[in-house]
Amino acid sequence: MPVPGPGYSITVRVEAPPSTTAAGDLTSAVGRAGGVITAFDVVESHADRIVVDITCNARSADHANDLAEVLSGLPGVRVRKISDRTFLVHLGGKIEVGSRVALNNRDDLSRAYTPGVARVCTAIAENPEDARRLTVKRNAVAVVTDGSAVLGLGNIGPEAALPVMEGKAALFKKFAGVNAWPVCLDTQDTEEIIRAVELIAPVYGGINLEDIAAPRCFEIEARLREKLDIPVFHDDQHGTAIVVVGALRNALRVVDKDITDCRIVVCGVGAAGSAIIRLLQHKAPADIIAVDVDGIVHEGRGDTDRNLQSIAASTNKEGRTGTLADAVRGADVFIGVSAPNLLSADDVATMNDDAIVFALANPDPEIDPLDAQKHAKVVATGRSDYPNQINNVLAFPGFFRGLLDAHAHQITDDMMIAAANAIADVVDGERLNASFIVPSVFDSAVSPAVADAVKKAALAAKVGEPAHAGGSSLPWSMAEDIDF
Amino acid sequence: MPVPGPGYSITVRVEAPPSTTAAGDLTSAVGRAGGVITAFDVVESHADRIVVDITCNARSADHANDLAEVLSGLPGVRVRKISDRTFLVHLGGKIEVGSRVALNNRDDLSRAYTPGVARVCTAIAENPEDARRLTVKRNAVAVVTDGSAVLGLGNIGPEAALPVMEGKAALFKKFAGVNAWPVCLDTQDTEEIIRAVELIAPVYGGINLEDIAAPRCFEIEARLREKLDIPVFHDDQHGTAIVVVGALRNALRVVDKDITDCRIVVCGVGAAGSAIIRLLQHKAPADIIAVDVDGIVHEGRGDTDRNLQSIAASTNKEGRTGTLADAVRGADVFIGVSAPNLLSADDVATMNDDAIVFALANPDPEIDPLDAQKHAKVVATGRSDYPNQINNVLAFPGFFRGLLDAHAHQITDDMMIAAANAIADVVDGERLNASFIVPSVFDSAVSPAVADAVKKAALAAKVGEPAHAGGSSLPWSMAEDIDF
Repeated sequence: MPVPGPGYSITVRVEAPPSTTAAGDLTSAVGRAGGVITAFDVVESHADRIVVDITCNARSADHANDLAEVLSGLPGVRVRKISDRTFLVHLGGKIEVGSRVALNNRDDLSRAYTPGVARVCTAIAENPEDARRLTVKRNAVAVVTDGSAVLGLGNIGPEAALPVMEGKAALFKKFAGVNAWPVCLDTQDTEEIIRAVELIAPVYGGINLEDIAAPRCFEIEARLREKLDIPVFHDDQHGTAIVVVGALRNALRVVDKDITDCRIVVCGVGAAGSAIIRLLQHKAPADIIAVDVDGIVHEGRGDTDRNLQSIAASTNKEGRTGTLADAVRGADVFIGVSAPNLLSADDVATMNDDAIVFALANPDPEIDPLDAQKHAKVVATGRSDYPNQINNVLAFPGFFRGLLDAHAHQITDDMMIAAANAIADVVDGERLNASFIVPSVFDSAVSPAVADAVKKAALAAKVGEPAHAGGSSLPWSMAEDIDF
Repeated sequence: MPVPGPGYSITVRVEAPPSTTAAGDLTSAVGRAGGVITAFDVVESHADRIVVDITCNARSADHANDLAEVLSGLPGVRVRKISDRTFLVHLGGKIEVGSRVALNNRDDLSRAYTPGVARVCTAIAENPEDARRLTVKRNAVAVVTDGSAVLGLGNIGPEAALPVMEGKAALFKKFAGVNAWPVCLDTQDTEEIIRAVELIAPVYGGINLEDIAAPRCFEIEARLREKLDIPVFHDDQHGTAIVVVGALRNALRVVDKDITDCRIVVCGVGAAGSAIIRLLQHKAPADIIAVDVDGIVHEGRGDTDRNLQSIAASTNKEGRTGTLADAVRGADVFIGVSAPNLLSADDVATMNDDAIVFALANPDPEIDPLDAQKHAKVVATGRSDYPNQINNVLAFPGFFRGLLDAHAHQITDDMMIAAANAIADVVDGERLNASFIVPSVFDSAVSPAVADAVKKAALAAKVGEPAHAGGSSLPWSMAEDIDF
C-alpha cells in the first residue's frame, strides 16, 4: 500500500464546535483514517464555532475523499470546501514568459522595439550566429514531445503531456537558469515530428526531446542531429544514461571494483536501456548482457528491430541465452529500466559478491529495495523515499547550461561521459558510502559542475565555439560588454 | 534628415584632461556634430585625467561613429570604448521563461512534477478543455512569423525576425500580462506554415501571426481559422485595422461628420489595407475607394489576385477609375498604408472640407504631416514624434487578454469593432481634439478597456465560454479556487 505523500495533499476547511477537544477530535480522526496531517490553521473563531483548515497527505485520490468524509461524519462538524493542493500548484500554468527589458517610456520602446530593433535584425541577417548573442536563442531550449510515452501514463497526447513539459521547463530554470519552452506536437508521425522541430529550431539553442515512444524516438533524434546545427538530446535516453553511469562510477568505488572486470545486466531495452548500454560501452565493462521481455538479447534471436540488432551485435560476448535469472547469475551489476517486480531476492543472491542493483522502474521498481539489500551491497532506485535516487534532474539542467554556454552545435558521447563523471565527483570521498552514491537533486553544486564539464568537453571537441569567436557583426566595441 | 533619437543611442567612454573646461569642451563638440547628449557621468577622477561616459542620441549608425571620431579628435582626449545602447538592450534576449511554482524541496517537486503531476495529466486527458485551467495554455499566445515581411526590412528570414517577435512578446507581457512566445518558422511555404502552426497549437490559447508577406498571409490565416479551435489573429491586418477604425471614430467626432456620409480612400491594398477596408465596411461608410500601385481598384481592371477581386467587388460603388489624385478629390478621409511621399499637399487641398488624413507608411509617411496639416483638419501617422500615433500596441495586448479571458475559440468582426470602439472611447470628450484622437500607448486604461470589450463581445457571440462552464473534471470543489 502506498504511503501518504505530498502528491495527494488536500486542504479541508471545516466548521467545528468550539470545544476544547475540537482540534484533537479532528486531527485524531484524520490520523485514524490513515491521513498524515501537515498543517492545522484556525481561520476564524466565533462563540459558537471555529473554522479550521486541515492540510493532510493522503495515499490516493480516493483516500483523500475518504478523509473528507470521515471529518464530515464527526458530530457538529461541517466540511465547507476541499482543495487539492497538487491541482492548486498547476492552476493557470507553472511557467510564464517575462520581459527582461524596461518598456516604460518612448525611449525604451524605441530601443527594444521599433525603430531601434531594425538594426539588431539587420545585424543578425548579416551574421546569423549573432542570434546567439542578441536574442533569447542564446539561452532557450525547446522541450519537445508528441505525448506518446508520458511518465507511466503512456500515450495521453500533447495537451495532457503539457503539465509534465511545463514542470520540466520550471526545473530547467530553477536548476540552471535555462529558458525552456514546451513544444507539444499534435502528431505522432515520425516525419511530421522531425519536420516540425526543424521548422521551429531558429528560436532555440538546443532541443530536448521528451516522452516520445520508442523506437520512433531513436530515428527522430538521429535525423534531427543530422539536420540541425543545434544540439538535440532525448532526455529519456541520455539524461537517464548519464545519471546511471555517474551513479555506477560511485557504486563501483564503494565496492572497490573496476568496471573493466564487471559483467553488467541491463534489463529493459527501450529508450533508457539502449542509451545506458551505449554510454556504458565507453567505459569498457567486461561484458554487458541486455534482457528484454523475450529474455537475454543475443544475435541468434533473429530480432528485426534495428535497435535490438545493434545491441545484440555489440553485447553478450559469450552468446548467452535464457531468462533474466540466467543473466544475473554471477553478474556484478543489475540495471533495471523495465517493469515492477521482475527480479527476486533469490535472483540477487546468485549475483557476484558485492553486487550492485539499480532498480529504476517507475513508480514501482524491479525489486523492492529492502529485498534487494539482503544480498546486494549497493541499491539504488528512482524513488525519492529511498536512498540513492537516480533522477534525471541531476543531469539535464546542467547539461544544457553547458551546451548553451559553449554555443555547442552537437552532442558527443564524451560530453555525456564528462557529465556523468561530474555528477559522481560531486560526492566526495568523505560522504561516499553505499547509501550515498549520488548527490541530492537539491545540491546546488551539481548543475554548475555538470555545466562546466560539458562546456569543457564541447570546446575540446570543437563542437562549440568560444563566446568571442570572430565573424560577429556586432557594432563597434560591443563585444566587450558581452558577458557570457 | 532624421532627427537624433534613442534608436541610435551610444555611450562613449573617454579619457580627458582634468581641466575646468573639459566637460564643456566634450559636450559642445558633440552638440556641434549634431548629437543630442542625454547623460554625462564622471566615472573616474584622477590628478592627471578624468574618465567620462557621454551618452547621446545620433541620427544613424554612421552618425554615431562620426560623433565618436569628433570626440577622439579633441586635444588630449582618448576614446576608450563605445557602447551601442540599443544593442545592449537586446544582448542575451529580451524575454525569459520563469517558474511560477516553488521547487525548493521534495514536497514541492512531488506536487509540481512527479508523482503529483500525473494526476493533472490524467485530468486533462479526460477533459482536454481543462488544459485552459491547469496549464500555461490558459494564458499563452504564439507569435508566429516566417520572417518574410519584417518591419520595413522585408524578407530577412526567421532568425533575423526574432528580435521583433521577442519585442512583441515583451509588449504582450507589459501591457496585458499575456505569456507570448516567438515561433520563427524556417520555411516560407504556405502549406508548411499552416501545418507547423497546427502542430504546435496544443500549448497555446491563441495564435498571433506577424510579419508574414501578403498574399500568403490571407490564406494562412483563413485556413488556420478553419482548422484550429483557438483564435488566430494576423496583427499586421487586424491590429492595424482596429486602431485605424478606432482613431477614425474619434477623428469623425472632431470634425462632426457621420461615417455613413463619408467617402474614404484607402491607399495600399496589402495586409493592412485589405483588413482596414473590411473592418470599415462594418461601419457602412458612403463609399470606400481602394488604390494600389496601378491606381484606383475597380472591377474593370481584371485583377487576377483573389484579394483584389474581392475588394473591387465590395468597394467603389460608382466605378471610378484613375490615379490616387483622382481618388482623393472630394473624399472625406485618406488612409495610407503604402509608401512614402505618394500624396501631395495639393492633393489634400482637393479633398472635402474638414478632411482627415491618416498617413501611416513606416518609417516615412505618404505625406509629411506638416504639409498635410495645411489643408486637413485631422492628421495622424505611425510616428512617435508627431501627435496621433496609430500604433498596434494599442490593440493587440488587450485584444488577446480578452480572447484568453473569454476562452474564445474564434474571432469575429464584432469583437474587432468592439476593440476599436473601446480604444476610441478611452479618449473622453474633454481631452478629444484634432491633436489627440487616440490615447498614448502608455495609457494604462487602454488594454483593460479593450480586453473587457473583447471578452464581452466573445461571450455575447458565444465563441467563448464562461470560465466555470460545466464538463470540467477538476476534482472536488476545486473550481471555487479558480480565479480567472
